[in-house]
Amino acid sequence: MANNVKKLLAAGKAVMNGWLVIPSGFSAEVMAQCGFDSITVDIQHGLHDYQSMVQCFQAMQAHPVTPLARVTWNEPGTLGKVLDSGAMGIICPMINTKQDAEAFVSACKYPPRGTRSNGPVRAAMYGPASGYQGTANEETLCIPIIETKTAVDNIDAILDVEGIAGIYVGPSDLSFSMGLPPVLDVELPQILTIFDELLKKCAKRNIFAGIHCASGAYAARAIAMGFRMVSVMNDARMMAAHATSVVAQVRKGSKGVA
Amino acid sequence: MANNVKKLLAAGKAVMNGWLVIPSGFSAEVMAQCGFDSITVDIQHGLHDYQSMVQCFQAMQAHPVTPLARVTWNEPGTLGKVLDSGAMGIICPMINTKQDAEAFVSACKYPPRGTRSNGPVRAAMYGPASGYQGTANEETLCIPIIETKTAVDNIDAILDVEGIAGIYVGPSDLSFSMGLPPVLDVELPQILTIFDELLKKCAKRNIFAGIHCASGAYAARAIAMGFRMVSVMNDARMMAAHATSVVAQVRKGSKGVA
Amino acid sequence: MANNVKKLLAAGKAVMNGWLVIPSGFSAEVMAQCGFDSITVDIQHGLHDYQSMVQCFQAMQAHPVTPLARVTWNEPGTLGKVLDSGAMGIICPMINTKQDAEAFVSACKYPPRGTRSNGPVRAAMYGPASGYQGTANEETLCIPIIETKTAVDNIDAILDVEGIAGIYVGPSDLSFSMGLPPVLDVELPQILTIFDELLKKCAKRNIFAGIHCASGAYAARAIAMGFRMVSVMNDARMMAAHATSVVAQVRKGSKGVA
Amino acid sequence: MANNVKKLLAAGKAVMNGWLVIPSGFSAEVMAQCGFDSITVDIQHGLHDYQSMVQCFQAMQAHPVTPLARVTWNEPGTLGKVLDSGAMGIICPMINTKQDAEAFVSACKYPPRGTRSNGPVRAAMYGPASGYQGTANEETLCIPIIETKTAVDNIDAILDVEGIAGIYVGPSDLSFSMGLPPVLDVELPQILTIFDELLKKCAKRNIFAGIHCASGAYAARAIAMGFRMVSVMNDARMMAAHATSVVAQVRKGSKGVA
Amino acid sequence: MANNVKKLLAAGKAVMNGWLVIPSGFSAEVMAQCGFDSITVDIQHGLHDYQSMVQCFQAMQAHPVTPLARVTWNEPGTLGKVLDSGAMGIICPMINTKQDAEAFVSACKYPPRGTRSNGPVRAAMYGPASGYQGTANEETLCIPIIETKTAVDNIDAILDVEGIAGIYVGPSDLSFSMGLPPVLDVELPQILTIFDELLKKCAKRNIFAGIHCASGAYAARAIAMGFRMVSVMNDARMMAAHATSVVAQVRKGSKGVA
Amino acid sequence: MANNVKKLLAAGKAVMNGWLVIPSGFSAEVMAQCGFDSITVDIQHGLHDYQSMVQCFQAMQAHPVTPLARVTWNEPGTLGKVLDSGAMGIICPMINTKQDAEAFVSACKYPPRGTRSNGPVRAAMYGPASGYQGTANEETLCIPIIETKTAVDNIDAILDVEGIAGIYVGPSDLSFSMGLPPVLDVELPQILTIFDELLKKCAKRNIFAGIHCASGAYAARAIAMGFRMVSVMNDARMMAAHATSVVAQVRKGSKGVA
Repeated sequence: MANNVKKLLAAGKAVMNGWLVIPSGFSAEVMAQCGFDSITVDIQHGLHDYQSMVQCFQAMQAHPVTPLARVTWNEPGTLGKVLDSGAMGIICPMINTKQDAEAFVSACKYPPRGTRSNGPVRAAMYGPASGYQGTANEETLCIPIIETKTAVDNIDAILDVEGIAGIYVGPSDLSFSMGLPPVLDVELPQILTIFDELLKKCAKRNIFAGIHCASGAYAARAIAMGFRMVSVMNDARMMAAHATSVVAQVRKGSKGVA
Repeated sequence: MANNVKKLLAAGKAVMNGWLVIPSGFSAEVMAQCGFDSITVDIQHGLHDYQSMVQCFQAMQAHPVTPLARVTWNEPGTLGKVLDSGAMGIICPMINTKQDAEAFVSACKYPPRGTRSNGPVRAAMYGPASGYQGTANEETLCIPIIETKTAVDNIDAILDVEGIAGIYVGPSDLSFSMGLPPVLDVELPQILTIFDELLKKCAKRNIFAGIHCASGAYAARAIAMGFRMVSVMNDARMMAAHATSVVAQVRKGSKGVA
Repeated sequence: MANNVKKLLAAGKAVMNGWLVIPSGFSAEVMAQCGFDSITVDIQHGLHDYQSMVQCFQAMQAHPVTPLARVTWNEPGTLGKVLDSGAMGIICPMINTKQDAEAFVSACKYPPRGTRSNGPVRAAMYGPASGYQGTANEETLCIPIIETKTAVDNIDAILDVEGIAGIYVGPSDLSFSMGLPPVLDVELPQILTIFDELLKKCAKRNIFAGIHCASGAYAARAIAMGFRMVSVMNDARMMAAHATSVVAQVRKGSKGVA
Repeated sequence: MANNVKKLLAAGKAVMNGWLVIPSGFSAEVMAQCGFDSITVDIQHGLHDYQSMVQCFQAMQAHPVTPLARVTWNEPGTLGKVLDSGAMGIICPMINTKQDAEAFVSACKYPPRGTRSNGPVRAAMYGPASGYQGTANEETLCIPIIETKTAVDNIDAILDVEGIAGIYVGPSDLSFSMGLPPVLDVELPQILTIFDELLKKCAKRNIFAGIHCASGAYAARAIAMGFRMVSVMNDARMMAAHATSVVAQVRKGSKGVA
Repeated sequence: MANNVKKLLAAGKAVMNGWLVIPSGFSAEVMAQCGFDSITVDIQHGLHDYQSMVQCFQAMQAHPVTPLARVTWNEPGTLGKVLDSGAMGIICPMINTKQDAEAFVSACKYPPRGTRSNGPVRAAMYGPASGYQGTANEETLCIPIIETKTAVDNIDAILDVEGIAGIYVGPSDLSFSMGLPPVLDVELPQILTIFDELLKKCAKRNIFAGIHCASGAYAARAIAMGFRMVSVMNDARMMAAHATSVVAQVRKGSKGVA
Repeated sequence: MANNVKKLLAAGKAVMNGWLVIPSGFSAEVMAQCGFDSITVDIQHGLHDYQSMVQCFQAMQAHPVTPLARVTWNEPGTLGKVLDSGAMGIICPMINTKQDAEAFVSACKYPPRGTRSNGPVRAAMYGPASGYQGTANEETLCIPIIETKTAVDNIDAILDVEGIAGIYVGPSDLSFSMGLPPVLDVELPQILTIFDELLKKCAKRNIFAGIHCASGAYAARAIAMGFRMVSVMNDARMMAAHATSVVAQVRKGSKGVA
């Protein structure tokens, strides 16, 4: 499977990314048919673990969505294991310094760039005929989350680490680390200024920037700002949003009988 | 846990029922907080089996939703096992004759009414202090699905079986059995006439009627018709509906960049 | 694995049987080391299904306990599948007539005695070197539950079915079916008289009788009555009994501080 | 997904069918890349249940193998549930009479041919754009197992039931039912004569015949006899065969050091 | 859900804590009804992992027991993930220095106190209406295990780390690290002296001390010593203790027939 | 369970080791009967996690194979948890320095040698009557993987760490780290020279060396070189090799009909 995210970015397009927190291959299979370009299994804050991620990747495999994962931590054993299962990119939390970024990339890349261990038991099934290892360093994406003031302060050093494909901005954590309420779809000028700065620094290096949003409207606006990967809520909250709305519609429409 | 569905029906209210096909305790836990009165784990057409149903019931237990299940078939071993796990009602497919209905009720009721085997290992945890067995025959609901022309023809005999608490109308199967396309939210006069007939026969016996709908609008209308339990789509389709809509919103709002 | 239950019975000993309702291979592995002669995975009223039963059988395999299962119903597909997974005996509910008993045995025995389908994928791993199929009809035990007044009335016909190895008396269901409260460790003369009758009819045919008990004291007494397989509560209730007792001990011993 | 098995058969080709007994989506994913035309999840004698079957179907979806299932019994609730999960054909045991065959087909086909309940929650994802229900009766295959002398005696009546797509011969059960040892790759003339008879009767009606084999050599021979679907052992036995051979090779090659 | 452990401690009461090693939501649900104030899912030495912990938390949610977890290691990704799943406190092994304690607290607390990442996907469902994040730092408890001589030597520095709610003493590991046999319910004066010292240092800072015990008697005595959280064995050992005792009772009571 | 690997090595024999990547207790149970001396559950590159490893260990317990595990990383919490579940040895990746080796051994050994935490919940079931802890440091094996040029350069320091039982050579990673293609069954003189050096240094210290191979032929040759633990491919690749071969045999044997 070629990495469709890379192709879209190369063509100047923005990537519409789905986000999974329900630990079920079936909900992944459903989400994979909703029009997303890529789908991220969230092991950090989602209810996922390794096995549920594998089931999601298997269930998504027949569909044209690039499989990504957010891991819990910048830990080399896990990073390799997630890639071996077929992730075409990893979104990694708490990359705050050049050292963090270098360790992240090193764990994700085969020699000579890095120290990833060889054994892509599932991933190799879907690599090119010439062999997964020959293209993996190019095709799998290292995407650090920029979610603290420290990371913003160190952003140049982080972006200069060879092998960083993009960044993913976590607005609620970023706000939190600055003493602000942890919310998405931020409108505070001081945060928007940071977004602007991050986008410029990324653009200069041909590195894409992604962002997590709470609404489609803000996601569209983020694309207009220059973000090239947007996620909106997650599978569970989408379900809850629709369910809550239908319940209200029925209760209202039945004039209080329900 | 008292059966809230029974209380609502006794008060003349309609029951807003959620519907689960994703085999995950977590999605059940999310759905349980969306405002439904009851939630049905669909083992027949959903991706559920016994273990995923138990996990859903456990995850829903802290929330004010009455746990129901739809089984795959009118088979006594399964009916008892589902009740033992804590279901407060069973929606059972393919009840087409008086004999079907009698077998269904008999398998679900303890002696002397029926032949349900004793051993409510999980259900008894949530029964009254006086003991689950003493009230189970009253508190757990037998709800046959009326989904074939045969069942409509036999409706009086079915409804006259002692212990039938309500019926659940499956519009798509009913249409299918009559040579019509299998769709929900039916507008065809010949089907609406059947609904009307079923509702009258139920009302005469103080038996409630439920129906599966594809939209909140139709569910509200069904309540106006006289239905007293309405379900709309299911967890997966609600998630897909919202996700598809957000993707479209982003793609449109970003002027084609995404 | 030879069937140790058969050996014990042939030697005139009574079988101390453990009972599993927690769907976990690990709790089975723990129970397998508590001194039982056999252990029954309860799929009917326990929280078990096929996969959890297999895990229990695997986890018990290294221990000298004969693996048994109680199924949900006298259904041939399930009976064969449970035997194929390695059960050395099946306790089957609701055997009330000669026809029930004949169907039960037929589904459990290979030709020419019965119609069990060939394919003991896991069971054959633990059969004799000469092949599982050659001895399975002898080594795997058909044990109907006698739990209704109808079954008691038909007991001669049931016991006369060739291939019935023993019966298992369900005192609470038996009482229930006679209009009495569904309890174990029954002292009512009318029930004890039935026990006596069943024991005599079994003894005459060299068929063993088992019984489910709520206490070790009653189990010992049941053995004195003539029962040759006794089970006491189940894994979950044993755990709860001990936990409740320890909590009370601590609260009392700490003079109300806890 | 179009049913590739149907296409191959229509073209006069034989179908090489894989057989799964290990309850793992990953082993299914591996088998799906070994060159088979179809793969059958064996719920009857394999270690599979519903959930493991779904995971196998999901893991096989991206690969050009048609998903089939063997069920435990001719039970309508299960048959529908297996089809709803995406099976493109069902191999059903113990079809011995016209009544068995008619019940089997009826449970698998939508009205007007049969009584399958509408709700292809997963299957519909992979149906044609025009809707799964419109073509399901044609595209999903009913394949009774012929495994008893009774079935052979009733073969004309069974094959005449409208909707039978093929038969699957179980040589070991067939032999067993005739008082012979339950083995595959049979050479006994009396069995080969039956094969011949079955093949002729199938050919006359344009119904295909499949057979389970223990070796590739016999499978090739079976195709020469006229069988058009062959399976060889199963995933677990293939693994064991290779592992046992490698262990022997190493022990021999190391001159007894290993 | 308010943290009941905090309330009990504030009222001067001791907390009776249950301990889970069986990876099953059902055994958790049973234990949750045995009278404990809190229940700890043991991921370190128990058979639990993340998914089984979530199932236990879901199954305990309807019961008045505060959910706690023991993690395998002081690793920030895991600590956050466990809290996100709804743990109201974490018992963390191998906190031997001020640095260990500071890292532990930092990973568990939101800014500004710490660096916990925002995303309490399940935990927020059960937080106050005002939002989980607003009270989480106060309501979720950091409980280091004191289990080595090094930790005892550094106890003042550890206890002085802001955010330590209590300590949990591991008597067997503590003894082990001092060259003594690894046992619970220790009577050795040198260990009891350490307990006394730890209790005094905790009391001075209004920090509670907990301890793992092998018997209810010792637990009561530990409360008398000043411990305010006591655990006795675990679910599996409680089950085994009761089962072993019943088996012995039956064998003895049946005069050797069993 | 005594550690059979130790006995074989002490007797100068080589250990034939099986390798599991399919996350299923059943495939482990099958592999356990193919003649291996030990079987390694591969959590690093295999599809395994903690729970699937435990199921494999349970399913292997009745068979004479020593259970080993390869972990994802040299992380003390995981190392202890894997040993607690019953592993008799751990193969640990990325041991490149004396410090790595010392940390690895320390996490795996109880005091006074190391700092492993006490709580062998499952392992103790299979320890000697005198107690698991008394012999665990001797009976459980620390086996670092030597898979980088750095490790080769530091091999003396690594081997001198007290408690290293053996090494496991990862030829593909070793080659990769030296700028060569990542393949098994290496014939390159520069790699074979390294093997020779490693074998000599191990032999001098009475430490065994193991190696991962792609074929039985190479494994036999590796034993001749002096390796005393050999693994060949893994369960999934063995299955695939056999399946692919059978498919080819059938297609060829049927003259293209299949």
